[in-house]
Amino acid sequence: MLTASHRDYRILTAETVPAYLADIPTLRERLGGSASEWRARDVADGNLNAVFLIDGPKGGLCLKQALPYVRVAGESWPLDINRATFEYRYATRVAPHVGALQPQMFHYDADQYIIVMEKLEPHIILRKALISGTHYPRVPVDNAEFLANTAFHTSDLAVPFERKAADMEVFARNLALQRITVDLVYTDPYVDVWRNKISEPLGAWAEALKRDIDLKDAVTRARLAYLSKAQSLLHGDLHSGSIMVTADETRIIDSEFAWVGPTGFDTGNFIAHYVMAWFAKPFQPNQATDATTYRALLTADIVSFWQRFEERFLAIWRAFDGDNDGVPATVYASAVDRARLESFRRAYVADLFADTVQVLGIEIIRRIIGYAQIADFHVIEDVATRAEAQAGALAFARSLLIHPERYQDIASVVAALARFENAGLLPDTTRHL
Amino acid sequence: MLTASHRDYRILTAETVPAYLADIPTLRERLGGSASEWRARDVADGNLNAVFLIDGPKGGLCLKQALPYVRVAGESWPLDINRATFEYRYATRVAPHVGALQPQMFHYDADQYIIVMEKLEPHIILRKALISGTHYPRVPVDNAEFLANTAFHTSDLAVPFERKAADMEVFARNLALQRITVDLVYTDPYVDVWRNKISEPLGAWAEALKRDIDLKDAVTRARLAYLSKAQSLLHGDLHSGSIMVTADETRIIDSEFAWVGPTGFDTGNFIAHYVMAWFAKPFQPNQATDATTYRALLTADIVSFWQRFEERFLAIWRAFDGDNDGVPATVYASAVDRARLESFRRAYVADLFADTVQVLGIEIIRRIIGYAQIADFHVIEDVATRAEAQAGALAFARSLLIHPERYQDIASVVAALARFENAGLLPDTTRHL
Repeated sequence: MLTASHRDYRILTAETVPAYLADIPTLRERLGGSASEWRARDVADGNLNAVFLIDGPKGGLCLKQALPYVRVAGESWPLDINRATFEYRYATRVAPHVGALQPQMFHYDADQYIIVMEKLEPHIILRKALISGTHYPRVPVDNAEFLANTAFHTSDLAVPFERKAADMEVFARNLALQRITVDLVYTDPYVDVWRNKISEPLGAWAEALKRDIDLKDAVTRARLAYLSKAQSLLHGDLHSGSIMVTADETRIIDSEFAWVGPTGFDTGNFIAHYVMAWFAKPFQPNQATDATTYRALLTADIVSFWQRFEERFLAIWRAFDGDNDGVPATVYASAVDRARLESFRRAYVADLFADTVQVLGIEIIRRIIGYAQIADFHVIEDVATRAEAQAGALAFARSLLIHPERYQDIASVVAALARFENAGLLPDTTRHL
Repeated sequence: MLTASHRDYRILTAETVPAYLADIPTLRERLGGSASEWRARDVADGNLNAVFLIDGPKGGLCLKQALPYVRVAGESWPLDINRATFEYRYATRVAPHVGALQPQMFHYDADQYIIVMEKLEPHIILRKALISGTHYPRVPVDNAEFLANTAFHTSDLAVPFERKAADMEVFARNLALQRITVDLVYTDPYVDVWRNKISEPLGAWAEALKRDIDLKDAVTRARLAYLSKAQSLLHGDLHSGSIMVTADETRIIDSEFAWVGPTGFDTGNFIAHYVMAWFAKPFQPNQATDATTYRALLTADIVSFWQRFEERFLAIWRAFDGDNDGVPATVYASAVDRARLESFRRAYVADLFADTVQVLGIEIIRRIIGYAQIADFHVIEDVATRAEAQAGALAFARSLLIHPERYQDIASVVAALARFENAGLLPDTTRHL
């Protein structure tokens, strides 16, 4: 898939994209006509990469190019350009198990760090839907299906260990983006670092988080789990900005943070952005649905996501009869063995849930205190109001991390949301909640 | 370190070893004189590889060559020859942390799968000492030092995650030997497979192990931990056959099973072979020490190994001030933080102990039921007597796995030994012990 003319890396622009595509026969064919008829638009939305949508007489394409720096930060924050490899490798690895839940990959250019994939239109980024108050009921169900399949089929439950070792070998090289996760998610909010973005009214909260040794202890356990619990291949960045939707379709994108880690990282990350939407909702402008109604929908979506994930994960496991080293069929041969295996499965999923709750708390904190903040809160223009919404989310997140025994099922998690809504800007007064 | 003449792999013999060494100036220099003056002896003792000791006028060397099959099984059991790489890589990786506790590496030949290292003489294999009833009191202390250092310095407690990911990338390729561990240690004893070697009097025990769902459940949790708990770089085969001793020196050898996994694997493996020596001791012929006395020494050695390991691991951790991602110093900055960190350390070590106890049980079972049996039992010529000794060890091992709550510290482990000594050949009658 490489041509000699692409060997010298250059950053593409909307103007130069057509000429690039014109060199590749399979892509030329998909667009139809000739380069002069193609329209390329720069639609970069995430933090890291350049993204273009290209339309031709016959069809469309999406081109994503890694830049040698963090796009939103500019050249002052250099970033290993090789990350496109990992997105492509992840997509290829999970493709047999997720069907149309991710865009089709058409072309990978290892020299230009370019992936050309299916153009998603009229899909919108889920985060925008969550912010505008538009409800997409398929998302929790579809994402549960995506994660149940990727989590199961890349774990020791489903493959000989050699297959998983091969994944570990590949994704152990995904260092530049893991450095971002390790720092921004697991460390920055608990230390003083230039990358944190602490709004003035949240000053007391930021201080409280740094001082809270119970919280930091829980985060350290989760950080060690992220680094050493090699359970399944993670998407690694599966929040509402990595999901594109229409009423009928859900597509998971942007898997360049892929890593073999604790399964609960992806599930917890996803739920965190629904929780943050819940806390932000009453204060966001221009809503398509009234806040109370939409909050009820978000709550139901969180519950249905987790229940569906659990149900599908267990169902896929029960139906699986392939070769694997984690739970070999030869060891569980009798009727008694198989009955016990069902208890084993439930214990396994309970462990995934505990990890999910941990990551849920950690992701919320890092999106409010850390570098990569989210529009769900930032569309609230009044800083004081925004901080009140964020403080509720922080109080909730802290409780998840320091009182995990209170959150043994998804019902306890959603039931707690309202308890923290008015937690306020003084963290110490709400620690009992 | 490669010369063109070595590119075509050939199996060396005591006759061809001198010519091989003569081609390599640094090794020629170490031996002194010329090839005609060198004496090479085939001293292969382990299950897998060819090993030669070479003496010259000036000094000696040890040459180890991987064979394309399992040495003790012959060509009918092929084995990926590339395993020498992993032994060399492990030795190089841990060298800065273990000093003289492993032989010095002089030469690695990637084409001939040869490692040339320090010749250990008059060292003997620890297993032979355990069998003859000779006591080497430095071993538990030295091995505790070796494992405390390798376990700590290759974990997320001691390195930026990029360093550990580099280890994972390398050792995730060590597939042929991990396949042996996964099958022989974690699976074979619980299923019907040609490799098991079940002595006739142990028939009821072998059946009981396959039927015991509590036991198999515990083994499955441990198997999943071996495959997915990427805690530190393991030696992977650290039993009494991988340790060479004199009264003053301990050398850890044969690290070709290296793998990033649960730290407790190495510690549990080591203890298991002291425990098996304990059960075998009264029935072994030609003893240098009376059995009661030697058993007391073995018990004391087990306790001192674990206590020393724990003490050194904690001491190294407390003194460590290097860059790491698991427990960043910036997160634990205040006096309160540091006080909590001490609790965190103790909890971490308690978790290592729980893993140690699991592996201790699993290693005993596999050495009695599985393919790779040990001389400690097989020097007992009378099959019935040998089986009685083995049955005691099996009963002890089963108890460790199905009642972990009874074994919360090393004192409980050694105190239980005598309880299982006369467990006997009928496993169901002793399950209450």
